Amino acid sequence: MNFEKEIVIGVVGGMGPQAGLALCNSILCQTNARTDQEHLPVILMSFPGAVEDRTLFLQGAVADNPAFAIAGIIQKLEKAGAGIIGIACNTSHSPEIYDVILHELKKRRSRVKLVNMPYETCRHIQDTYPSVRRVGLLTTNGTWQSGIYKKLLREAGLEPVIPDYQFQQNVIHKMIYDPDFGIKANPAAVSEKVRTLLDKALHYLKEQGAEAIIVGCTELSLVLPDKMIMDMIIVDSTGTLAGALVREATRKEMKKSLC
Amino acid sequence: MNFEKEIVIGVVGGMGPQAGLALCNSILCQTNARTDQEHLPVILMSFPGAVEDRTLFLQGAVADNPAFAIAGIIQKLEKAGAGIIGIACNTSHSPEIYDVILHELKKRRSRVKLVNMPYETCRHIQDTYPSVRRVGLLTTNGTWQSGIYKKLLREAGLEPVIPDYQFQQNVIHKMIYDPDFGIKANPAAVSEKVRTLLDKALHYLKEQGAEAIIVGCTELSLVLPDKMIMDMIIVDSTGTLAGALVREATRKEMKKSLC
Repeated sequence: MNFEKEIVIGVVGGMGPQAGLALCNSILCQTNARTDQEHLPVILMSFPGAVEDRTLFLQGAVADNPAFAIAGIIQKLEKAGAGIIGIACNTSHSPEIYDVILHELKKRRSRVKLVNMPYETCRHIQDTYPSVRRVGLLTTNGTWQSGIYKKLLREAGLEPVIPDYQFQQNVIHKMIYDPDFGIKANPAAVSEKVRTLLDKALHYLKEQGAEAIIVGCTELSLVLPDKMIMDMIIVDSTGTLAGALVREATRKEMKKSLC
Repeated sequence: MNFEKEIVIGVVGGMGPQAGLALCNSILCQTNARTDQEHLPVILMSFPGAVEDRTLFLQGAVADNPAFAIAGIIQKLEKAGAGIIGIACNTSHSPEIYDVILHELKKRRSRVKLVNMPYETCRHIQDTYPSVRRVGLLTTNGTWQSGIYKKLLREAGLEPVIPDYQFQQNVIHKMIYDPDFGIKANPAAVSEKVRTLLDKALHYLKEQGAEAIIVGCTELSLVLPDKMIMDMIIVDSTGTLAGALVREATRKEMKKSLC
């Protein structure tokens, strides 16, 4: 079977499960294909029950670092033939989790190429919107606390516009995690309350001078597809990761080295 | 990691790739969950380039039976831990393909439970709409030619309403396969021409007395979600397969036998 000869994209899904599917869908949308057969090979592994909540871990509310489960899933993906990996969850890219994933993969002698979602997102802004300076952030509390986007944006010469703790806690995080109306509890239908909070967040970031906004949580990508809102450029981290995975999977030199 | 102890659903995707994602999405929608962790474990393998077009094979236009590639993917899913398998493609359930898949799996001593999409779809009509008698069919030429739905509907005491060859060829198959405007060529945006042909097909089946319609091609599921149209019940084969996979994955006795 010729799938053995192709570079297979591996997606770590399940965080939440809808976000893993959204990443796969974005891979399809960014692939130049007119028939089924022209699309890229993808394996999605979605083990939602196996991975502890990333934000709860970063806040000290659960003890197990989800990095070990994620590294285990990446190893399963590699064993199944995947060569390039994307993790469909921004919070997993916080150093306390991501560095442990990298360490585990090294220890297990993994040979996969792991594509870094926040790095690709910041790079995408640099490459695509060179005039943008101030970049707002919509993330989970976990990603907010880790400072990963702040660091990467500064390294890219950009100015992060970060909500204060109160606003982050009561508006942005609530959209994602509220047990009644949040996106995680109702991924199929976005509630009116989420829309109201989202509007509040966009106004807040606009007032702080944001010219672009990073949708830095894959759950929020489900309600904010890549476009302009209130004159701000919306940069969807799910879309930028998908684009980077397609780019890596179709690089000729990589194909040669793995075949 | 606790994913080792759960029953994992394996999805053979890639036929087309969008249909595999739609099946995974329907599994999510039919799962009773309020947090990420409550969702079912799923592996999707989408190797679009590895599987020959099913209809072209059934029509004799390509020599390789896609059954061998599909059986290979099922074996990879089983190796990765999947215990219950769904194939997100109706045409693959035509006996010339499906029987070879079963034979191959037996030969390879596979222990997976393969859930049969057309069988589950006909069973769903029997169970959910007991007053329905005449059932219309929207399928690829391959499935049309195989007669699989006709056989299963008759076995269920239902009367199949099947388009004649000319109509099947010029209206229904065109919606899916037309290289310019068909769904396979443009899965992200349904063209006006597809909508016009779909309307024609629904009127045709209504005139023939159909009380329900089986959306018996996973590509068509993308444009005809499960609902009523023109007083006919629309039964989406993607949705019925997803429901059956969730049912099988949450059966307690099965859990016991595999753990």
